[in-house]
Amino acid sequence: MELFFNPRSVLLVGVSRQTGVGAYNGLEMMLRFGYRGKIFVVHPQAGEILGHKAYSRIRDLPEAPDLAVIALARDRVVHVIEDCLAKGIRRYVIISQGFADADDKGRKLQARLTALAKEHNARIVGPNTMGVMNNFTGFTTAFVDVPRVMQPPRVTLIAQSGAPQVGSESFTGPLGKAVDIGNACDVGFEDLLEYLERDPETEVIALHMEGLVNGRRFLEVAARLSRAKPIVVLKTGRSEAGARAALSHTASMVGADDVFSAAFERAGVMRAANAQDLLDTIQALRKLPPLKGPRIGIATPSGALGIIALDALAAAGLQPGRLPQAVKEAVEPLGPYWHRLHNPVDLWPIGMKTGDFLKVAKETIAGFLADPEIDGVMAMLPGLSSPLHRNNIVTPEFVASLNLERFGKPLVLAFYGDYRDELNRNLARVEGVACYFSVEQAAHGLARLHQYHLIKSVPAENLNISAPAPGKFSHRAEQNLLGEAALEFLSAYGIPTVPGALCQSAGEAADLARELGYPVVLKVIAPEWLHKSDKGGVVLNLSNDEEVRRAFNSLQEKVQSDNAQASLEGILVQKQAQGRELLLGVKQDATFGPVMVCGLGGVYTEIWRDTAQTLAPLSMAQSHALLAKLRSYRLLTGFRGEPPVDLDAVAQALANLSRLAVEHPELQECDINPLIASPAGCWAVDARIIRKP
Amino acid sequence: MELFFNPRSVLLVGVSRQTGVGAYNGLEMMLRFGYRGKIFVVHPQAGEILGHKAYSRIRDLPEAPDLAVIALARDRVVHVIEDCLAKGIRRYVIISQGFADADDKGRKLQARLTALAKEHNARIVGPNTMGVMNNFTGFTTAFVDVPRVMQPPRVTLIAQSGAPQVGSESFTGPLGKAVDIGNACDVGFEDLLEYLERDPETEVIALHMEGLVNGRRFLEVAARLSRAKPIVVLKTGRSEAGARAALSHTASMVGADDVFSAAFERAGVMRAANAQDLLDTIQALRKLPPLKGPRIGIATPSGALGIIALDALAAAGLQPGRLPQAVKEAVEPLGPYWHRLHNPVDLWPIGMKTGDFLKVAKETIAGFLADPEIDGVMAMLPGLSSPLHRNNIVTPEFVASLNLERFGKPLVLAFYGDYRDELNRNLARVEGVACYFSVEQAAHGLARLHQYHLIKSVPAENLNISAPAPGKFSHRAEQNLLGEAALEFLSAYGIPTVPGALCQSAGEAADLARELGYPVVLKVIAPEWLHKSDKGGVVLNLSNDEEVRRAFNSLQEKVQSDNAQASLEGILVQKQAQGRELLLGVKQDATFGPVMVCGLGGVYTEIWRDTAQTLAPLSMAQSHALLAKLRSYRLLTGFRGEPPVDLDAVAQALANLSRLAVEHPELQECDINPLIASPAGCWAVDARIIRKP
Repeated sequence: MELFFNPRSVLLVGVSRQTGVGAYNGLEMMLRFGYRGKIFVVHPQAGEILGHKAYSRIRDLPEAPDLAVIALARDRVVHVIEDCLAKGIRRYVIISQGFADADDKGRKLQARLTALAKEHNARIVGPNTMGVMNNFTGFTTAFVDVPRVMQPPRVTLIAQSGAPQVGSESFTGPLGKAVDIGNACDVGFEDLLEYLERDPETEVIALHMEGLVNGRRFLEVAARLSRAKPIVVLKTGRSEAGARAALSHTASMVGADDVFSAAFERAGVMRAANAQDLLDTIQALRKLPPLKGPRIGIATPSGALGIIALDALAAAGLQPGRLPQAVKEAVEPLGPYWHRLHNPVDLWPIGMKTGDFLKVAKETIAGFLADPEIDGVMAMLPGLSSPLHRNNIVTPEFVASLNLERFGKPLVLAFYGDYRDELNRNLARVEGVACYFSVEQAAHGLARLHQYHLIKSVPAENLNISAPAPGKFSHRAEQNLLGEAALEFLSAYGIPTVPGALCQSAGEAADLARELGYPVVLKVIAPEWLHKSDKGGVVLNLSNDEEVRRAFNSLQEKVQSDNAQASLEGILVQKQAQGRELLLGVKQDATFGPVMVCGLGGVYTEIWRDTAQTLAPLSMAQSHALLAKLRSYRLLTGFRGEPPVDLDAVAQALANLSRLAVEHPELQECDINPLIASPAGCWAVDARIIRKP
Repeated sequence: MELFFNPRSVLLVGVSRQTGVGAYNGLEMMLRFGYRGKIFVVHPQAGEILGHKAYSRIRDLPEAPDLAVIALARDRVVHVIEDCLAKGIRRYVIISQGFADADDKGRKLQARLTALAKEHNARIVGPNTMGVMNNFTGFTTAFVDVPRVMQPPRVTLIAQSGAPQVGSESFTGPLGKAVDIGNACDVGFEDLLEYLERDPETEVIALHMEGLVNGRRFLEVAARLSRAKPIVVLKTGRSEAGARAALSHTASMVGADDVFSAAFERAGVMRAANAQDLLDTIQALRKLPPLKGPRIGIATPSGALGIIALDALAAAGLQPGRLPQAVKEAVEPLGPYWHRLHNPVDLWPIGMKTGDFLKVAKETIAGFLADPEIDGVMAMLPGLSSPLHRNNIVTPEFVASLNLERFGKPLVLAFYGDYRDELNRNLARVEGVACYFSVEQAAHGLARLHQYHLIKSVPAENLNISAPAPGKFSHRAEQNLLGEAALEFLSAYGIPTVPGALCQSAGEAADLARELGYPVVLKVIAPEWLHKSDKGGVVLNLSNDEEVRRAFNSLQEKVQSDNAQASLEGILVQKQAQGRELLLGVKQDATFGPVMVCGLGGVYTEIWRDTAQTLAPLSMAQSHALLAKLRSYRLLTGFRGEPPVDLDAVAQALANLSRLAVEHPELQECDINPLIASPAGCWAVDARIIRKP
């Protein structure tokens, strides 16, 4: 990867002779950006472009450059790459569009590129890309003029588009390095993350992601990396309509949005809700020390903004800390006699009286930061252009005078007024302080810092998502399994099932029911009766032989009259388990493999949609954590004086189901609904196992 | 009110002789702002300030000015007002702090101000205020220098703080007029809304609200106004901590946050989630024509931003419209042969090929706006500072060339890149187009326009929240009512109850049960047994005389052994109603009066918190609408083949309960839980009525 970011020599193919406005000339951009390595140009007629000799054929080049940047019409790309490979070039950035982003022909062309890279041990970034940017050494492959950042921050962006690197002000703020992987025919997120793991110029990683091909490999690398270098991802295509466009745009697989969230969480990757969130989060991570607790000191120029700050902190999951005694003693006496200090500290009456608003602000901010029971500070300050307010204007010198290094705690500022943009610009490069356009963004920036602090505290093994290799089992699901057959399969994995059996006659049913002990349940088992509850195919609360016989006969008739061709496998007679109805499930996600789901079961599942998901496999601790995410968790832990259900048994069933899923990649879906959880164990009562088509 | 905004003459009391930085001299600010009326100054020694003669005593003034602005230390304010009243002055802005915003003494001083206003038919804005700003005529009472807006928009702000008018860039954008009502000892939101109703210079109204004293009166005026002039409110103090600070800051009553949301919704007032939302919403309302439907055309400079736009629209409740055939025919042929147009329209490949990105953007935007199946357009466009991109820069002339007036549809722009702030500034005054910092904000701005369009379509009678005057009733709740007594009270208002009665002996209970028909329910009725289900004070499913007798005796013993002093009123014997358990309730809110609540009832109420609220009274239509807001509404309308419950009966019970609440202001709370709703009617099964203390 190093050769992509720091090539000693570059070949450009597809550069136009036109320059200037509207020409999108990659050579011109590379020179403007300050690239100092050797540049070779190939052009059939030009002879020379911008002072660089143009070779008419690739084979004429005097050497094999480290990297080739290709910006030809799509139909000519494969041919040129073959020439370059023959010349010995092994790194490519393919700018050209019209591949998997366009149509069937484009997809075929792109497959050919992938194959060429494999065959020749070459690496390709793109196609449909702006390529690479490195502000440390001054290298870019973009065809759009991007101003160079001269003291670059150690922030690296991997994107599936050029927009976030061209318009970094709207996505991440200033960047050190960036790659647009475009259609990602070869180089993907995982390759680049592995490179960034060892890159000393990368301390914070931003991702713009539309889809992933190998979700598990990405997560393994990300989980290894995330506690050393924060990773923040803007995953787009959340909405259904968005997901469809993502497919046509980058031709990558898009899994369901919830699964992405669960996967990122599992690997310690922070997900940004939108571009603004990404920007705010990266600013906090780039500029501020960690926020080690939720207790915030607040300085405000007005009571109204103090209230707004409290609202914003509460929404961000943070809270106001106690007002330090030292601040009370130092600041309160400066104000009017009736003015009492609280947190938020209302600076205005004191600033009015002393005529030196900033001095009061400084005392307050420093006093908060010095207090051991305050974890960070948020200050709202005026940004007013009038010359009459020049005494209120925060400058880099003001921030320097706070000596923020000594505290090791974050300070966020939110300015308001007609001069706020200028203030934000003035302070953009000042270390140790982050500036936001609103109180809400400032509070959110702090919350993200705290989130990352918590991620760093997670034991490494919890982030581990590697699955054990599938084992060998006598049990194989050769076909879809329903009801009793599915339960039998599950019980081989240690998932308890309700005692019972399939019966073919009313007499057999009554005999079994007596043996099991009343009450019992009867259920129709037939492929046409998958939704048996809805169709009246389940009879509960049968408490004697006669009731069992009657129910058996009536179910048989029902199946017959519903559809004479129905293939009734029998009527299932089961002991009636009593307890909470849960749903446990697993489904194979195209991106991330087996995904575990648990939730409230029974008929109300779809009303409340109270479910939680994460990736398989699950340890006991992870299973317990997943259950605790349910809103209905309180129903399991002893609601209103009822005894708690056997949570260990439920967690064990979840963990066992996750092992089953990992060991049976041929299964597309496995649902247990309901699993009845009682104070003395749990039982899978009905289940359904679907093989991959 | 007019005299507050356009006084012909002003008296200033409490102006300092100091001027310039740090002096906060109100006279200096008034002159800088361009006030052209007569100014009188009273100062004991100054003789003259900034060229204005200073009278040493109020009685020496040659006339009674229209308005007095008072900025003295709090202890001198009442005395000065008395002098002013004697002089005949009837309008006041009291800048001074330290009243109800501070301590007990301050609250007493403020009560005196309120009384003086009443006695003398005078009006007071403040205290603790920055007062009034009028950019149309050039008048301000602020002690902070705020630049005058020379072509003011018809936007008026009423706030409970000076910050939103001083820092309007962070709250509302440019303002025409503004008032800070501060502690609102006299003039409040309602007075000002009534004035704005008739003010031709006000077309959009922004509110910053911390609390309300007379909620009903505010809503009546707002409901009358909201369909003619949009009202957007930033109600702060959402969080519990925030609410506490609001109380200490403005000494106004703060009701529960959900009640405020329900009240605003009822009056057609739009609630902003935070300051940024307020800013974005006001910009859309101020600059754009209505968005009459949800179908949006999207122009994007990259596929990636197109996906982000789809996510943002979906989150905002809008959707992409169909690509107009005219756009396809005009624009697609200009691009590479493989580039197919969809909505979002990816402009880049076409702009690259034609070299004229803006021409393509213009054709696309105009094509979308001209299509009858597109309701509005969102365009993301580059804002890049490089001179090589000057051909991509949107200018006011570009916007003018679109002739937006002809479409009558909104266009929102979101720029990205290092030149975006400048672009936003350049276009700030261009009519018919709104510019946002992010795609999410742009989508949200459109959604707010659509919301206002829907508010305008609501029939006037639905916004009406005036309650009928309390009637005269033989039924009075002289004390708290529980169980049977509460149900009897409810049934007088036409709320059906389950047949049953209080019994004193097991024999009486069995006789009644037989009469009612089995199954029946027995319930302990005693003040100590309010949570009777939790304590085992309810026995269900009793199906014969013997079971009833046994249950009766066992309940009696339970009460006795729980607490020998318990005052058992009897055991309630009721027919066991079968159906869905709902909760209906009403509580007196300190700000808004009776608030209706409905939700899922029974023991799970607190798990799912599936409730909806609005203000009483409720018509049948409003009752139905409230029920339809429940997540569990599907359980009522025929879930999974079950018959629907009698929704008309439930709505009637809600409407009747709301009438009861309006007619009995002495009741603090009335809960029906459960109300059993069946396909053939509904019955209140248990209830609780609490009088005001």
